[in-house]
Amino acid sequence: MAKIMTLGEIMLRLSPPGNQRFVQANTFDVVYGGGEANVAVSLAQLGHDAYFLSRLPQNELGDAALNQMRHFGVHTQEILRGGDRLGIYYLETGASMRPSKVIYDRSGSAMATIAPDALDFERLFQDAVWFHWSGITPALSEHAATLVRNALISAKKHGVVVSVDLNYRQKLWTPKQAQTVMRELMPYVDVMIGNEEDAEKVLGFKPEHTDVTSGELSVENYKAMFRSLHEAYGFKYIATTLRESYSASHNGWSALLYDGITFYESKRYQIMPIIDRVGGGDAFSAGLIHGLIQQGDPQYAVDFAVAASAIKHTIHGDFNMMTIKEVEALMGGDQSGRVQR
Amino acid sequence: MAKIMTLGEIMLRLSPPGNQRFVQANTFDVVYGGGEANVAVSLAQLGHDAYFLSRLPQNELGDAALNQMRHFGVHTQEILRGGDRLGIYYLETGASMRPSKVIYDRSGSAMATIAPDALDFERLFQDAVWFHWSGITPALSEHAATLVRNALISAKKHGVVVSVDLNYRQKLWTPKQAQTVMRELMPYVDVMIGNEEDAEKVLGFKPEHTDVTSGELSVENYKAMFRSLHEAYGFKYIATTLRESYSASHNGWSALLYDGITFYESKRYQIMPIIDRVGGGDAFSAGLIHGLIQQGDPQYAVDFAVAASAIKHTIHGDFNMMTIKEVEALMGGDQSGRVQR
Amino acid sequence: MAKIMTLGEIMLRLSPPGNQRFVQANTFDVVYGGGEANVAVSLAQLGHDAYFLSRLPQNELGDAALNQMRHFGVHTQEILRGGDRLGIYYLETGASMRPSKVIYDRSGSAMATIAPDALDFERLFQDAVWFHWSGITPALSEHAATLVRNALISAKKHGVVVSVDLNYRQKLWTPKQAQTVMRELMPYVDVMIGNEEDAEKVLGFKPEHTDVTSGELSVENYKAMFRSLHEAYGFKYIATTLRESYSASHNGWSALLYDGITFYESKRYQIMPIIDRVGGGDAFSAGLIHGLIQQGDPQYAVDFAVAASAIKHTIHGDFNMMTIKEVEALMGGDQSGRVQR
Amino acid sequence: MAKIMTLGEIMLRLSPPGNQRFVQANTFDVVYGGGEANVAVSLAQLGHDAYFLSRLPQNELGDAALNQMRHFGVHTQEILRGGDRLGIYYLETGASMRPSKVIYDRSGSAMATIAPDALDFERLFQDAVWFHWSGITPALSEHAATLVRNALISAKKHGVVVSVDLNYRQKLWTPKQAQTVMRELMPYVDVMIGNEEDAEKVLGFKPEHTDVTSGELSVENYKAMFRSLHEAYGFKYIATTLRESYSASHNGWSALLYDGITFYESKRYQIMPIIDRVGGGDAFSAGLIHGLIQQGDPQYAVDFAVAASAIKHTIHGDFNMMTIKEVEALMGGDQSGRVQR
Amino acid sequence: MAKIMTLGEIMLRLSPPGNQRFVQANTFDVVYGGGEANVAVSLAQLGHDAYFLSRLPQNELGDAALNQMRHFGVHTQEILRGGDRLGIYYLETGASMRPSKVIYDRSGSAMATIAPDALDFERLFQDAVWFHWSGITPALSEHAATLVRNALISAKKHGVVVSVDLNYRQKLWTPKQAQTVMRELMPYVDVMIGNEEDAEKVLGFKPEHTDVTSGELSVENYKAMFRSLHEAYGFKYIATTLRESYSASHNGWSALLYDGITFYESKRYQIMPIIDRVGGGDAFSAGLIHGLIQQGDPQYAVDFAVAASAIKHTIHGDFNMMTIKEVEALMGGDQSGRVQR
Amino acid sequence: MAKIMTLGEIMLRLSPPGNQRFVQANTFDVVYGGGEANVAVSLAQLGHDAYFLSRLPQNELGDAALNQMRHFGVHTQEILRGGDRLGIYYLETGASMRPSKVIYDRSGSAMATIAPDALDFERLFQDAVWFHWSGITPALSEHAATLVRNALISAKKHGVVVSVDLNYRQKLWTPKQAQTVMRELMPYVDVMIGNEEDAEKVLGFKPEHTDVTSGELSVENYKAMFRSLHEAYGFKYIATTLRESYSASHNGWSALLYDGITFYESKRYQIMPIIDRVGGGDAFSAGLIHGLIQQGDPQYAVDFAVAASAIKHTIHGDFNMMTIKEVEALMGGDQSGRVQR
Repeated sequence: MAKIMTLGEIMLRLSPPGNQRFVQANTFDVVYGGGEANVAVSLAQLGHDAYFLSRLPQNELGDAALNQMRHFGVHTQEILRGGDRLGIYYLETGASMRPSKVIYDRSGSAMATIAPDALDFERLFQDAVWFHWSGITPALSEHAATLVRNALISAKKHGVVVSVDLNYRQKLWTPKQAQTVMRELMPYVDVMIGNEEDAEKVLGFKPEHTDVTSGELSVENYKAMFRSLHEAYGFKYIATTLRESYSASHNGWSALLYDGITFYESKRYQIMPIIDRVGGGDAFSAGLIHGLIQQGDPQYAVDFAVAASAIKHTIHGDFNMMTIKEVEALMGGDQSGRVQR
Repeated sequence: MAKIMTLGEIMLRLSPPGNQRFVQANTFDVVYGGGEANVAVSLAQLGHDAYFLSRLPQNELGDAALNQMRHFGVHTQEILRGGDRLGIYYLETGASMRPSKVIYDRSGSAMATIAPDALDFERLFQDAVWFHWSGITPALSEHAATLVRNALISAKKHGVVVSVDLNYRQKLWTPKQAQTVMRELMPYVDVMIGNEEDAEKVLGFKPEHTDVTSGELSVENYKAMFRSLHEAYGFKYIATTLRESYSASHNGWSALLYDGITFYESKRYQIMPIIDRVGGGDAFSAGLIHGLIQQGDPQYAVDFAVAASAIKHTIHGDFNMMTIKEVEALMGGDQSGRVQR
Repeated sequence: MAKIMTLGEIMLRLSPPGNQRFVQANTFDVVYGGGEANVAVSLAQLGHDAYFLSRLPQNELGDAALNQMRHFGVHTQEILRGGDRLGIYYLETGASMRPSKVIYDRSGSAMATIAPDALDFERLFQDAVWFHWSGITPALSEHAATLVRNALISAKKHGVVVSVDLNYRQKLWTPKQAQTVMRELMPYVDVMIGNEEDAEKVLGFKPEHTDVTSGELSVENYKAMFRSLHEAYGFKYIATTLRESYSASHNGWSALLYDGITFYESKRYQIMPIIDRVGGGDAFSAGLIHGLIQQGDPQYAVDFAVAASAIKHTIHGDFNMMTIKEVEALMGGDQSGRVQR
Repeated sequence: MAKIMTLGEIMLRLSPPGNQRFVQANTFDVVYGGGEANVAVSLAQLGHDAYFLSRLPQNELGDAALNQMRHFGVHTQEILRGGDRLGIYYLETGASMRPSKVIYDRSGSAMATIAPDALDFERLFQDAVWFHWSGITPALSEHAATLVRNALISAKKHGVVVSVDLNYRQKLWTPKQAQTVMRELMPYVDVMIGNEEDAEKVLGFKPEHTDVTSGELSVENYKAMFRSLHEAYGFKYIATTLRESYSASHNGWSALLYDGITFYESKRYQIMPIIDRVGGGDAFSAGLIHGLIQQGDPQYAVDFAVAASAIKHTIHGDFNMMTIKEVEALMGGDQSGRVQR
Repeated sequence: MAKIMTLGEIMLRLSPPGNQRFVQANTFDVVYGGGEANVAVSLAQLGHDAYFLSRLPQNELGDAALNQMRHFGVHTQEILRGGDRLGIYYLETGASMRPSKVIYDRSGSAMATIAPDALDFERLFQDAVWFHWSGITPALSEHAATLVRNALISAKKHGVVVSVDLNYRQKLWTPKQAQTVMRELMPYVDVMIGNEEDAEKVLGFKPEHTDVTSGELSVENYKAMFRSLHEAYGFKYIATTLRESYSASHNGWSALLYDGITFYESKRYQIMPIIDRVGGGDAFSAGLIHGLIQQGDPQYAVDFAVAASAIKHTIHGDFNMMTIKEVEALMGGDQSGRVQR
Repeated sequence: MAKIMTLGEIMLRLSPPGNQRFVQANTFDVVYGGGEANVAVSLAQLGHDAYFLSRLPQNELGDAALNQMRHFGVHTQEILRGGDRLGIYYLETGASMRPSKVIYDRSGSAMATIAPDALDFERLFQDAVWFHWSGITPALSEHAATLVRNALISAKKHGVVVSVDLNYRQKLWTPKQAQTVMRELMPYVDVMIGNEEDAEKVLGFKPEHTDVTSGELSVENYKAMFRSLHEAYGFKYIATTLRESYSASHNGWSALLYDGITFYESKRYQIMPIIDRVGGGDAFSAGLIHGLIQQGDPQYAVDFAVAASAIKHTIHGDFNMMTIKEVEALMGGDQSGRVQR
């Protein structure tokens, strides 16, 4: 059981029920989610002392977001309260060949307007083992970017392992802006997680010939890209999920992990039907962190991470909900879905 | 059937179902509403050619807001599309002694960032008979305030009757700011609607000794205030609703209209239980406009308006839904609620 | 436990959830109900062998209607299957001063097109103790009226007690038509149930000075009317409910029973809030039949009937759901609504 | 943006939620739909001035049906009000090998009892570019059939392009009746849409060896049938959708268009899972009309139509909801269902 | 139409809606079910006089369970009332590779605490044709086991055909306990239904090399096992369903029947998506009983049973809902899922 | 902010939605609640370090109960896991004169089967300021009663203030049993909370002439009873709520506090409509504890407690949800229910 720190934004997520389109909806399902928050929720369920660092408005929506994380055991006492609003994202869940859609309404959020020195990382990172963040947080605002940099400096000072999920968001910044900020932060990173689009947009690396809409992925291209990334930044681990998008309802799902020497390929799952794929990447990050902390065995880690995140695709909401036992049963090969009585 | 123009903002309204508190909600009911939009929807149902002038973002939420107005017959073809976001308000519906709560999240909305010359009122007010606006619209931004001024100038030029609902919103501006802007706009107004709080905050007028939380209202104080307002601005009509707030579930409801000579007091209704009181004032404004246009009889107008808006309190959402026949049946004294087979 | 026969139509009832208006509804609550069916369902729950005689279309909607009655223990094996459609009524539930509304869509139903000799009453009324029908059934069609007449003749032959609820429906026939048919059927009736409107429209009797929308009822006028009815037809019992309609959410509720000698007035209940008042009269009829069969004590019967039907007002759907124990607890004076643990 | 006229019936559609069976349902989902209405709704969303001509009862259900079309921008001002009832269809949505079921309850509807001369087509077809109808409308009643004939005569006179969807309904008429009426109306038709069953039942044409329950379709047989139809009636375009029914949840979907010279085959989609296939054909008709009007390119038209209607299968309700941009993205090959952020 | 007796426990089933996990649920769907009850409900729908013998607590939950069976036509008049509680099972419905989960809370139930001589089988089995029970019932308690034995003795005496579904439940007893009780009861059995796990755990028989999580089944192994079972107990018929578990959403489904001479293999269905697989085995048992009673043709019986139970997988709840016509249409090969209009 | 310990059982609560009866329900609303757990949840929201001590089964239902408390900030880390089942109570919410009903199914629960020495109170009560328990906990089982005694001994040793809510439950024990156990525990109690029924059944004290179903309460009788209780046990404070039960929808609500010298009567509230009265007493206990800790002013404490618990009646579920600010606004006299914008 390790003390793990995460830093980022949690948003209100509003989605029409089932597969309704936005223009049909008379109710919205309400959950709360965000990259690093989702990671913290997974880690708390896996038994870790997971902290979420963020800023929430001093109103009932802020309360609700905080409560939802506390619900799953995340330590929320360090969350700041203030600012004008909670960021929102609207999600329309697709089906078959109709894609899911996200509308962001997050500018001016409490987290985007956080002061760069609002958090005392020196205190917070005492005894911490791991720090996880994503490329979304520095993209929120200059203040947020400085805050992340401060966190990274402090993490290194305290010997805290750092993982990042690149998570490029085109609505928040351009590739050029992303690269300016993110390249400077990479030296602090031990474990880098990102797919082909992230690596290209955020770091300027690109696997060849990949068409993300074709449903096919070339593992060989990824390996070449990982070698280049390793050379450039010396990451201890580089990982990516490999999503094969056959349709909004059917994906192939696997992952690749590289420790600078060996490539570890995970088992590959067919997910059909997908209940909710948002948060799948975050479930992977959490699974990877857990796997690396628990056993230090890269093959176990990537297998655990991909199985945990496969389960996430069957669960409504951003948060994964699973137990180690369930993940390991799936890793062990039981995909039969037989009733557990 | 008259061409009636309205100008303002329509927002996404999100509310926990039934009497749930925000922190309990796993779904939000979704409707769309806003002062002038609510008036337009009522007027369209009463048979008028009601236009709503506004600006909505070019996304599915903007589409949904527009569709909802078109649903009830409002002319939406002059609504502009653009801007970053749709304003939001969150509504928690109270019960008994627990009040309803509103959280606004409307800054930076498409309507607040409208250009002051975005609408060609010269063309729009051709053949128009009536123009309705509220004190919320100029409070949104300086641009919006200038836009309203332009509309008023054009309205006068085309001989269009102008009504305003003062509708003071403390989250949008201070009394001082409100008075600076609004006092200058009053000379364009023919029909002024506002309760005690509005008159005080927006125009600096105040009835004596009124405690709005006591559930008692002094009609005499109102009369004195109306006489002063009439003297100051020469309004053709001054009106107010008289809400007696016994609890969140039980209100008394009546109204007072003044034409500078005579005071017209409406019938008084006991509303118990209240299903949804938001939009009650807008339903009153619409009823008053309809009554004055249709018959020119002030007593009919205030009776129609208060009956129509009493019905609104029994309907979920900002929009009133009623027919002239239903309103007139209630005006005629049938409050028995007997099943209409 | 008595064998009790009922004859009539059961319809699909479609109602917007809660207090929604028809024009708001995206879902309809689905129940099934009809005057005599509702009576049969009550009687089955009170422990009687209650039969419902009717005709349902040979499709899944007919199945569903039948299943719902069987659910509560009504004997459904004598229901005929055939015809084109199941009759429908749409119900919008009002609140406060907004009345509930019913839209009927029942013409051409399986029951309206039943053959006059479709049911073998000679066999069906063997061992039967009671036969209940309402004024709705002969109003459905000439065939249905003839069928009712056949039933009445057979009932008399077998010594079966006959009760009728006059239940005037203006959408089905005019007072003139009603009187032509119904007056001829009254000689077969032992127990006549009807309020002021029914007596006037169906039989041409009228209490003086009663305004049904005023919420006040004159018991004295009723007594005079009952004496006249007794003289005219020699009914063994005459009964009426006395509904005081303060609003759609609040009614006074009591009843009056006359045996030709003595008037039995029931306790009077304040019902607030009303959950669903449809079927209240049917619950009364069932309670009266039960009371008269069980104890033969008119005061008990009218008290039981009015208490049972008061409970009905707190239950969604046409069917009452209660136990003798619950009704008697209310008769005994416990209106406190304290939690029964 | 073209003025497009449609003529037909819109019904209330009642369906158990999700995959519930009729006998399980305690609520029904409520939407409104009908062949030509569905086409009008699609065309309005694609930017056309789409009119729906019909007759609705003067009650709240008629209001609701009208409002739903207006919601999506259809011009509803020419819809007549009157008659006794709104037609209904009940839909049970199947799953896997369990088929969906429809129960019709539409006889005696407002549209079926319309007067043959109720609509002034001379006025209505001024400036119209296109007129669309289906084989359902003349099947409703003799009056309706005469009305269609009047519309067709007027359309020809005004140079309006005419399209028909044969849409055979066995519950409304026999093949013999259909052929008697429909063959006479074919000379007015420019664009004929119909699958194998329609062509056989309505016009007496039949592709060879086709078993519609086998999930396999012979395009060659269709081509032969189209050539015969072209010879017989000289249609400008003949089109059909090609549905491969593997199960209630999984269909193949493509289409074939013939201009008398060339056959245009569309792309073929695998739809899995199907959310709601009702209205798929209507979405195709609307897409075809749009494609032919916009570009006059038959290949574009059939590709647009089949992509638009594939999307329809992922949307609850009769109405398609899509944008040109979404349809063209799917036509362009992106079936990956990746989240659109 | 045969009189068929079933004996067992019916439980309250509580399940999060859709695919929600237990920890997400704010509501539970409520149905009632249990092996033999499910069989009775199917048989009643297939036209038989199906009786359910059991014991339910004297409270509203007991009422509800009874009503649900009566709803579908099961004879419930012989159900005893008493005891402390209704047994419960909680069901979480899985998706893709996430399995469904069952939590039992059934100890101390009214049925588990039934007196061994509570039912007068001598009277109950008069005129009965068939008696069905499952291995769950004797596992409930020693009393229940003795009760089953009494029933079997009485059944034999009255010449009633006996069928059993072995249905091993590891939460109720160990294989050793099961074998001690069940082996002694097998001599009374004519028709034995059980899959590989049941045969092994309950009777000690085992097919070779079968891995139930692999999704592959060896029919040959089953045949060997059936021959051994036939030799050991002389069952008239032995049957099993053959479930191929690809995932929680996708199963292959077929069955094998053996009459001691010939093996009858059914058609094989692909079920995708599965709506609710609980009760699938019970639907099979009921279909087999119906098939054997109706036609005495083993091939028809196994085909009917497997088709009926395939339909069950598309229906929410423990109970199957189908008609003979629907089952025979599927047996006849129509798996196309085309809309039945 | 004080460390406050609570000890008791939390149950799964299942209730038909709205005012449905048990026999109508197809879904149950799911919340979790229990006397002391409800107190802990209130106290955590009021800013205290509230701990709940209990035992939950090691399954997903136990997880869910724990999560719900953690959601609201209760410290749950000392909750033990083990045992067979989570206790359940079923709640049917009444309306008007129809009472709410509770069915308990809690025997054999994890908490009832807790070992008497399972909790190390010596460690747990370090630094604790207050310990709250109720008469329900010792009624669960002998083990639980011993556990409570152990807690009380330890509390006294650590100088922890002890409060009890007598909370008599007739389904758990008889008055005689209650008195045997509870009288011995009273010497450890500082703050005793109980209404007339509790005092009589649990301690053998009784106010005169009180009929709890009449809706009237005699404060004078209470004062006499309080004086006797004070004499007998020397409690520092004695308190009771005074519920006037007019109907299931309308209660009067006030309270009385006695410090051995002075009687403090609270304000009296009319609660209409009641949304959910379960947990009202627990909200009072929590408010009283908070008031006494915060200010030591008995009048403030009883006023705060009664206002907080009045709010509880407007909230669905066992848990109160409020802020100090909201409670104090109500204490301050604003019962108007005006919208808080």
